[in-house]
Amino acid sequence: MEFKLARINLSTQKVTEEKIDEKTLRRFIGGRGLGAYLALKEIPKGIDPFSLENKVYILTGPIVGTAAIESGRYHVVAKSPLTGILGDANSGGQFGPWLRFAGYDGLVLEGASEDPVWISIVNGEIKFHDAKHLWGKGVIHTEKVIRETMGVTKESLGSVLSVGPAAENRSRIAAVMNDRYRAAGRSGLASVIASKGVKAIWAYGNRKVLDELYDKRKYMEEAKKLIKKILEHPISKSLNEFGTAVLVNVINAHGALPTKNWTRGTFEKAFNISGERLAEVYLKARKGCWGCAIQCSRVSEVESGPFKTPISEGPEYETIWANGADTMIGDLDALVKANYLLNDMGFDTISFGSTVATLMEIYERAKKGELPEEKAKELFELLGDVNPEWGNPHALIQLIWMAAYRNRIGDLVAEGAKRLAEYFGVPEAAIHVRGMEMPAYDPRGINSMALSYATSNRGGCHLRAYSVSFDVLGVPKKFDPLGIDMEKVQLVKMQQDYFSFIDSVIVCKFNTFASGPEDYVELMKAAMGWEDFTVEELLETGERIYNTERLFAVREGTNYRDTLPKRLLEEPLPDGPAKGRTAKEALEKYLPEYYKLRGWEDGKPLPETLKRLGLEEFLYIVS
Amino acid sequence: MEFKLARINLSTQKVTEEKIDEKTLRRFIGGRGLGAYLALKEIPKGIDPFSLENKVYILTGPIVGTAAIESGRYHVVAKSPLTGILGDANSGGQFGPWLRFAGYDGLVLEGASEDPVWISIVNGEIKFHDAKHLWGKGVIHTEKVIRETMGVTKESLGSVLSVGPAAENRSRIAAVMNDRYRAAGRSGLASVIASKGVKAIWAYGNRKVLDELYDKRKYMEEAKKLIKKILEHPISKSLNEFGTAVLVNVINAHGALPTKNWTRGTFEKAFNISGERLAEVYLKARKGCWGCAIQCSRVSEVESGPFKTPISEGPEYETIWANGADTMIGDLDALVKANYLLNDMGFDTISFGSTVATLMEIYERAKKGELPEEKAKELFELLGDVNPEWGNPHALIQLIWMAAYRNRIGDLVAEGAKRLAEYFGVPEAAIHVRGMEMPAYDPRGINSMALSYATSNRGGCHLRAYSVSFDVLGVPKKFDPLGIDMEKVQLVKMQQDYFSFIDSVIVCKFNTFASGPEDYVELMKAAMGWEDFTVEELLETGERIYNTERLFAVREGTNYRDTLPKRLLEEPLPDGPAKGRTAKEALEKYLPEYYKLRGWEDGKPLPETLKRLGLEEFLYIVS
Repeated sequence: MEFKLARINLSTQKVTEEKIDEKTLRRFIGGRGLGAYLALKEIPKGIDPFSLENKVYILTGPIVGTAAIESGRYHVVAKSPLTGILGDANSGGQFGPWLRFAGYDGLVLEGASEDPVWISIVNGEIKFHDAKHLWGKGVIHTEKVIRETMGVTKESLGSVLSVGPAAENRSRIAAVMNDRYRAAGRSGLASVIASKGVKAIWAYGNRKVLDELYDKRKYMEEAKKLIKKILEHPISKSLNEFGTAVLVNVINAHGALPTKNWTRGTFEKAFNISGERLAEVYLKARKGCWGCAIQCSRVSEVESGPFKTPISEGPEYETIWANGADTMIGDLDALVKANYLLNDMGFDTISFGSTVATLMEIYERAKKGELPEEKAKELFELLGDVNPEWGNPHALIQLIWMAAYRNRIGDLVAEGAKRLAEYFGVPEAAIHVRGMEMPAYDPRGINSMALSYATSNRGGCHLRAYSVSFDVLGVPKKFDPLGIDMEKVQLVKMQQDYFSFIDSVIVCKFNTFASGPEDYVELMKAAMGWEDFTVEELLETGERIYNTERLFAVREGTNYRDTLPKRLLEEPLPDGPAKGRTAKEALEKYLPEYYKLRGWEDGKPLPETLKRLGLEEFLYIVS
Repeated sequence: MEFKLARINLSTQKVTEEKIDEKTLRRFIGGRGLGAYLALKEIPKGIDPFSLENKVYILTGPIVGTAAIESGRYHVVAKSPLTGILGDANSGGQFGPWLRFAGYDGLVLEGASEDPVWISIVNGEIKFHDAKHLWGKGVIHTEKVIRETMGVTKESLGSVLSVGPAAENRSRIAAVMNDRYRAAGRSGLASVIASKGVKAIWAYGNRKVLDELYDKRKYMEEAKKLIKKILEHPISKSLNEFGTAVLVNVINAHGALPTKNWTRGTFEKAFNISGERLAEVYLKARKGCWGCAIQCSRVSEVESGPFKTPISEGPEYETIWANGADTMIGDLDALVKANYLLNDMGFDTISFGSTVATLMEIYERAKKGELPEEKAKELFELLGDVNPEWGNPHALIQLIWMAAYRNRIGDLVAEGAKRLAEYFGVPEAAIHVRGMEMPAYDPRGINSMALSYATSNRGGCHLRAYSVSFDVLGVPKKFDPLGIDMEKVQLVKMQQDYFSFIDSVIVCKFNTFASGPEDYVELMKAAMGWEDFTVEELLETGERIYNTERLFAVREGTNYRDTLPKRLLEEPLPDGPAKGRTAKEALEKYLPEYYKLRGWEDGKPLPETLKRLGLEEFLYIVS
């Protein structure tokens, strides 16, 4: 198989084609893995993420767009302006497949254009277009104009990736958007794309990637088996029925729905903002990413009132949680609208809602006189007419505009929770790992998540290991979420490695409730012709990727230590089934065992580990 | 007296000083008059208002800052991006006086800076400063940063003039702001300043302008007499008590409060948004412009709730009307907040509210199926999550952000009502004269305003002639607002000429309820040493100014004809004391008489009129 990158220099508008050799592909697969490897080799240590030296890798994987098993994804990798280490994010929709159909398996953006441009990629031809008229505009308008310019208005044909005003204004929590409502949300990479002067990328073409597979017939057979397994799984079914927001009630019932900026584990208005209620009141249709039969995406509408929102996609569980429970906003009308605006402005909805929750806590403390007088005065001045009281949806909505254009307090909200809280001298009000805001599972109530979060390479993230699957959902088997069990450590590590493969190949993680590494061995043989491929190699590949990512942080000399926010380690939950719990015990017990399994010490891979994984070229980082 | 301009070329950052000779000063006084004269001489015909060839005149007048009779004003003149003819606007606060104290009686901005700058003027020294960090920011933040940079944080010292995001994004309804809450609002001149790359101007210094007057002692005596007269007038007293919003109930009672985009003349929620209610619920303090004892400005606050607004100035009658009655928003909380945001973003509140009212009408008609299908579809797409139903304050608030940054429908709102309505094929939904949105007095209920509006040089405006004063307030004597009386024509012309002088000298128009031209004769003698100055010369000077402004439009070959929006001429008011009335009869009767008095024909000054006024140099325009 040929895996072809277009290396696009924005400073010179020169494009060079580059083939990834078979050996590298087998060692890093594609997507997230290949991105980590190239970034570690090519991005110099210590650079400013917004400098010319940063590079953006927009990568698909070898089975993306093969009409099978939810393979409609792409991955973005760059040095993150939010964490200062390797950032990466992944998105569905249609862009990944269409990028391949357009002739490229991945793009590398280098340098920077002085004037904003958008890029069209059509059947291998890359062109640069003036984007001055699009700069400052939202994602929805941008996509519309580009489609009209290209003469392709049918939604199922071609795809636009774009960045919104948030990214143009260098928000550290800006999301790469595609197909209007899909986001490669985390770690602020959209702002790196914007810093290169790129507003959008159009991809369209006729390449038949399925035909390029080693054994198409066998591949389709294996894929069908897997799809059947996936579609029959009860979690797939409830994802279809209620969307990801099906989790609101489940996680709330476990006392692990972070509420009021992680000071509580249950939200009394959880049902109001649940997937069940979304389906009942707002749902107009179900939708899937390219080639996906699960159809977990919601098409919703708020028909009238102050939060009227047109038919549009979302909101997802994480969006609802961060902008809802975490801020105490129990009004789903407002959350549907907030989701729409956050997409249009191009924000990471998790980081945004979490940052607003942090602001609400800071505001409450300022009103109580708990901030230094000067800082409180400045806060009130910067807020002006914003009233960030717990539960006020109007503050949330206005903050989206203010952060997108960095107005007043918006200038700090756009920086994310950590910098906001530090600015006001209350760093503990930001709930983050490595500077990235944490998602919707309280590790005090689901203790395996303590390890999953702390060891996540990109920062506060539920997608490196989704140990909720065994602690709560019983996949592959059920554990007590509050019980210490060292088997969880093995499972967390296994998930991290398996998911590294999944994010590289690339398929949707929702496959993994039904699948295990063993399900991908035959598929990969058929796709790639790797006749001797095994479960062990698959997991070792994932482990190689995981270590490569970690090496980026180690080389930066920062943000590679594995820990959790003070609040989660020291403040017991005051409510719900996990009342009285912290995440301290779990983290302290799990982490040494994890390091043993990983061959790491104090967050750093040992030299022998790198040798075992064939990462000798990076030995210089740890020696 | 020396009247000194600084001519600032932004392209080269070169400043040249220029003295206005005594003869020109006596012919055009200063401010609005001098601006009109210089603009007509210096701005070439037919240029794009945003081109390098446009010039911005920021002018004070010869008695500005003389600690007497509300002389704290300045005037801005340039070719208007809203009307395409001469634009001008006037503002109080402190900037006018401080510009003089800083050593200049006026500024002319020419050319354009590539990178945004702000300008400091301190005791005759003009410096250019990088304004990149201020570009995109609101007015409040901009002023704060500039004051901190200059080390002058005491509010009563020095003054900042600035433009907000609205102007940066070339809104045609952007207001020049100063002292945070004061606006030279009309005709979109802030965007011309922004097009020159200028974000703000700081003025500070120790010049004693009072000492430069011809006979300071006599001037102070005359000024004291006038101040006494003004302060004793009942209208001055009610302006102090209730602010300009005292007019809400008064004009509503006359059935002339334009409601629901001028489809009605009374608003059932008028009391909710009245000056009386403002004083009762929101008022924290009264405030005046530099050296003013009337103190008509409001200092208000909304303490809690969705429309929480910090202590800030306003709102004025026009703001409340345009964003309230005209849009059917009867919630004063929302209007106080909207006023705050409109100031911070730098919008003309009259034009903005009127444009939103126009949008609401278009939306209603689109929902009823009265728009072409394609246009309705586009409207709904551009609205997205905005719900511009009559009376929805949340739509108003969000539209402020969207227009400031030209997002989706905001891109059209930023263009003003006329262009918005034309875009959707319903030009009659925009209530404007010469492209400028009309203010808060329905000429169907106050018929002298038909003439005042139609003949206003700058477009829909109540400040060229404020015939409400005699038709409603009984100053100088009471007329029947619904009765045809040709004496009104004389009074309208007299006011236009008198106000031209008032705007040039410059004092606040609220003086003119108590004063007449005769009150300024002795004052001008003392100030200027014009011993033979008379009432006749004062009014002829005003007439000269009025004709000069008109010549600008005549030369452009557009927008000089005097008429009213179709709705006001053809649709009878359905409600209130003026039920059944249109403005047609009044306009048709008054206009010929007015032209006779003016020596005009079909909106154009006759050659003999120009000769009579000593405007021979402009004869080429009319011959």
